[in-house]
Amino acid sequence: MKQFINTKENLVTEAIDGALRTAGGRLARLDGYPHIKVVVRTDWDKSKVALVSGGGSGHEPSHAGFVGQGMLTAAVCGEVFASPSVDAVLAGILAVTGKAGCLLIVKNYTGDRLNFGLAAERARAFGLKVNMVIVDDDIALPDLPQARGVAGTLFVHKIAGALADRGADLDTVTQTAHRIVEGVVSIGMSLDTCTIPGSPKENRISAGKAELGLGIHGEAGIEQVDFSNARDAMEMVVDRLAPNLSPGPHAALLNNLGSTTPLEMAVLAEELTRSRIGSQIRWLVGPAPMMTSLDMQGFSVSLLPVSQADEGALQAPVAPWPWPGCLALGHVPILPLPDGLTPIQPLPSKNPETRRFIEQCCQVFIDAESDLNALDAKSGDGDTGSTLATAAKAMIDALDRLPLADLTQLYRAIGIELSQTMGGSSGVLLAIFFAAAGDAAASGRDTVGALKAGLDRVQQVGGARPGDRTMIDALFPALEALHDGVGPAAAAARQGADATARITRARAGRASYVAETNLSGHNDPGAEAVARLFEFLASDEMAPAT
Amino acid sequence: MKQFINTKENLVTEAIDGALRTAGGRLARLDGYPHIKVVVRTDWDKSKVALVSGGGSGHEPSHAGFVGQGMLTAAVCGEVFASPSVDAVLAGILAVTGKAGCLLIVKNYTGDRLNFGLAAERARAFGLKVNMVIVDDDIALPDLPQARGVAGTLFVHKIAGALADRGADLDTVTQTAHRIVEGVVSIGMSLDTCTIPGSPKENRISAGKAELGLGIHGEAGIEQVDFSNARDAMEMVVDRLAPNLSPGPHAALLNNLGSTTPLEMAVLAEELTRSRIGSQIRWLVGPAPMMTSLDMQGFSVSLLPVSQADEGALQAPVAPWPWPGCLALGHVPILPLPDGLTPIQPLPSKNPETRRFIEQCCQVFIDAESDLNALDAKSGDGDTGSTLATAAKAMIDALDRLPLADLTQLYRAIGIELSQTMGGSSGVLLAIFFAAAGDAAASGRDTVGALKAGLDRVQQVGGARPGDRTMIDALFPALEALHDGVGPAAAAARQGADATARITRARAGRASYVAETNLSGHNDPGAEAVARLFEFLASDEMAPAT
Repeated sequence: MKQFINTKENLVTEAIDGALRTAGGRLARLDGYPHIKVVVRTDWDKSKVALVSGGGSGHEPSHAGFVGQGMLTAAVCGEVFASPSVDAVLAGILAVTGKAGCLLIVKNYTGDRLNFGLAAERARAFGLKVNMVIVDDDIALPDLPQARGVAGTLFVHKIAGALADRGADLDTVTQTAHRIVEGVVSIGMSLDTCTIPGSPKENRISAGKAELGLGIHGEAGIEQVDFSNARDAMEMVVDRLAPNLSPGPHAALLNNLGSTTPLEMAVLAEELTRSRIGSQIRWLVGPAPMMTSLDMQGFSVSLLPVSQADEGALQAPVAPWPWPGCLALGHVPILPLPDGLTPIQPLPSKNPETRRFIEQCCQVFIDAESDLNALDAKSGDGDTGSTLATAAKAMIDALDRLPLADLTQLYRAIGIELSQTMGGSSGVLLAIFFAAAGDAAASGRDTVGALKAGLDRVQQVGGARPGDRTMIDALFPALEALHDGVGPAAAAARQGADATARITRARAGRASYVAETNLSGHNDPGAEAVARLFEFLASDEMAPAT
Repeated sequence: MKQFINTKENLVTEAIDGALRTAGGRLARLDGYPHIKVVVRTDWDKSKVALVSGGGSGHEPSHAGFVGQGMLTAAVCGEVFASPSVDAVLAGILAVTGKAGCLLIVKNYTGDRLNFGLAAERARAFGLKVNMVIVDDDIALPDLPQARGVAGTLFVHKIAGALADRGADLDTVTQTAHRIVEGVVSIGMSLDTCTIPGSPKENRISAGKAELGLGIHGEAGIEQVDFSNARDAMEMVVDRLAPNLSPGPHAALLNNLGSTTPLEMAVLAEELTRSRIGSQIRWLVGPAPMMTSLDMQGFSVSLLPVSQADEGALQAPVAPWPWPGCLALGHVPILPLPDGLTPIQPLPSKNPETRRFIEQCCQVFIDAESDLNALDAKSGDGDTGSTLATAAKAMIDALDRLPLADLTQLYRAIGIELSQTMGGSSGVLLAIFFAAAGDAAASGRDTVGALKAGLDRVQQVGGARPGDRTMIDALFPALEALHDGVGPAAAAARQGADATARITRARAGRASYVAETNLSGHNDPGAEAVARLFEFLASDEMAPAT
């Protein structure tokens, strides 16, 4: 397995150093590398009860990520999934414990219990007051005599942390921590196991299966269940949790076990809320990665019955950024759509000359359909001609509802028509062209000025410039020449369109993905369409109309 | 691919609803599902410049996750990796734009440019002031005429957001946004492609390779490069970024593209800091997932030259939780190890009777080695006898340095010896036993009381109770009976030890993992050891010593 690490041996120390560099000076480590990996607050004066937790690494942001005001005072980090040594724990305790004493928050794994337990004994020999709570919130294996400690531990960190921060004494903090441990239940589900650095990936969970109740070190769960979708997955989790709920409001913690995407986590939050226990969940922490299992694609739900005092403690602000806050779980606030989404249709009006002019222009595109398709087939999917012809026919059909007598309104109306009838980028760009031209006309620009304003906007939004092998290669020079008359404009458009045949490196639009050899010698179909329009306008067939 | 979703079609709307429920009422959506997916602030009064961004989903927390005071006013969400419609963007603009106007922050993808561009035109037709900036920070493909917009967009959201929040006018906000867009450069690297919901996973990146410069939709990068480790990976990224750096301080944004673990991201932060451009990076945002690409195992680095004003804007507090803050990138603060890690060795003292007592007890374990090994072979790896015998021999060798004349100190000293010479859980538990007994003796408890205090602590830390098939099954009744004399204690210990042969369901220790049939009929070796010790103490061989 590829991973962004250097060596397995230096992984944890390098990661801690990286985290410390980016903590803005809020955190430090003890000078005990490589064996003693302890992260401590730099703003700690030992005047209050210290909270020390830790355990194996691989659960980030637990535990170092939760060191800071309002949560942990120190985190003792082991190697990946391995308990830290007694000496490391003792170093952590000694570094942060003053007269107010220290509470060790330990997840229920034998190594952690023993090493934290012996370190506590050693610290007591120095006259320090050290208490210990063991978190065993995992209900996955009800027959296991020693329930494991998983993400519910975060509730202990947060609530005990808030109490300690307010100056509560060690007994109060410890009793509260015990009460949280008594109350909290958790269970996890995963679609895949985690990848332990330097080890091959275990493929334990078969296709179409999920594992319910697996541990945060990838320990096997209760059972592999059929996986169908997020709703059923959450229902299975809720089925296990529901018998453990007491009456009254609960706080839930929705934990990302690693590589579950935020989209998935948000869907799971929605399903938890809509589940049969959703009405009992008043507060939610997350969804967020809090107690991960490396890159495990899974989640866990922890539930805690909460008193008003607990709610206050859960919501108290904290320094560690990874704590996502504890927010009231609520409905989905929905605001009405604003007015204005349906474009205001201008009042239709008549102008036979304008009508005829538009019809003639449209006919140019209808006539050019097969030629333009053939050109487009060189660089695209051969539909430019059909797209334009279809839009032109629709425009002719729409003439009765257009404000033909009001040029300013007409630009905008054409823009709206095109955006509705003509698909693809071209339709949007032409809609933008006419909308911006309409704005310019409304503010007093003449026809050429208005059209140039439209083209400016098209260039800004579309990103194409002259020379990029688009319709702009014909339209830009045509508009520049239009003050001199439609004849020079047509000549300029033709020259520009023909020049596109020599542009073998398209810089915008779909043709930019096409190999050079396929572009050489063929005009860009959009530029060709513009040239044909101007040539028609300059021709004898056309009576001067505008 | 298994994912925690229900249907591909409802994924984005369900995820948005899930996110809104868990936003504490801070966010709402417009009533336009399924086509119009717009998330807006609920605390917005249109008195300041609105910032609207968005694009395809799959980049969470971008964009809805960054809606809130100090950053975006609205996010317009498309389906996964698909641009939202013109109507959706227009709805977003109309919902939040007042007289102060609106800035659209658009990443440089054709669909987004066009749809945001046309929506802007439509909004302008209502007389609204709408500006647009197009972010093109990706330097991965220098020859691409249209550089893509990637995670550098976050700098625009944050700095323009801070300005708008302070009441700056639309021109000022727009100019600043343009300046940020001019300055910011980004590039990404990934070890694997992302998994598009409902689609099979593309296996484009071969084993041993990484892809440099791929896009946030999994678009292919510049090249596949040999992947060795985090340091070399970051160096390749830095090689691309360095030529784009201007003199002076920069802010860096270290973005998790999806499923890179926090451990890996922290190592990458360390490598970025130690790289040759590290000294030019004064501020760091992250590492954190900010502009993800579903579950892509990759990262990106964005760099922005910053003025003092930018620094202030980057550090201004914001409401959206996913913004990780912008902290000064610094050294690793290191504190000295606390005193007390090396246990204080008590002064040796002599007491021939105590010495002989300990020697005799130790001899019991030495003599029992093969018997205890044989019992342990039934439930473990057959080394309990050897472990105890080795520890007993070491204890005899240590007698000269023990405080034999000071019983209180002696308990603690034996604990320290055992924790250093006896491996495994038993060594730690016996060390805890003697340490706690020493504490109790120091506070005035008699011998039996001290030993009971030791056992209490062992039960708390180790988690085993009588009946769990451990040494406690003999030690607990023996200590209960010890007030009546060593004879009754020995009888109780023997009874307890023999009872373990009928406990076929071990509830603690290694035997809890062993099948019942392998346990039946054999005493637990730890309990047997305790019984043999007490039987010896009650025997004629033993002269009364304490």
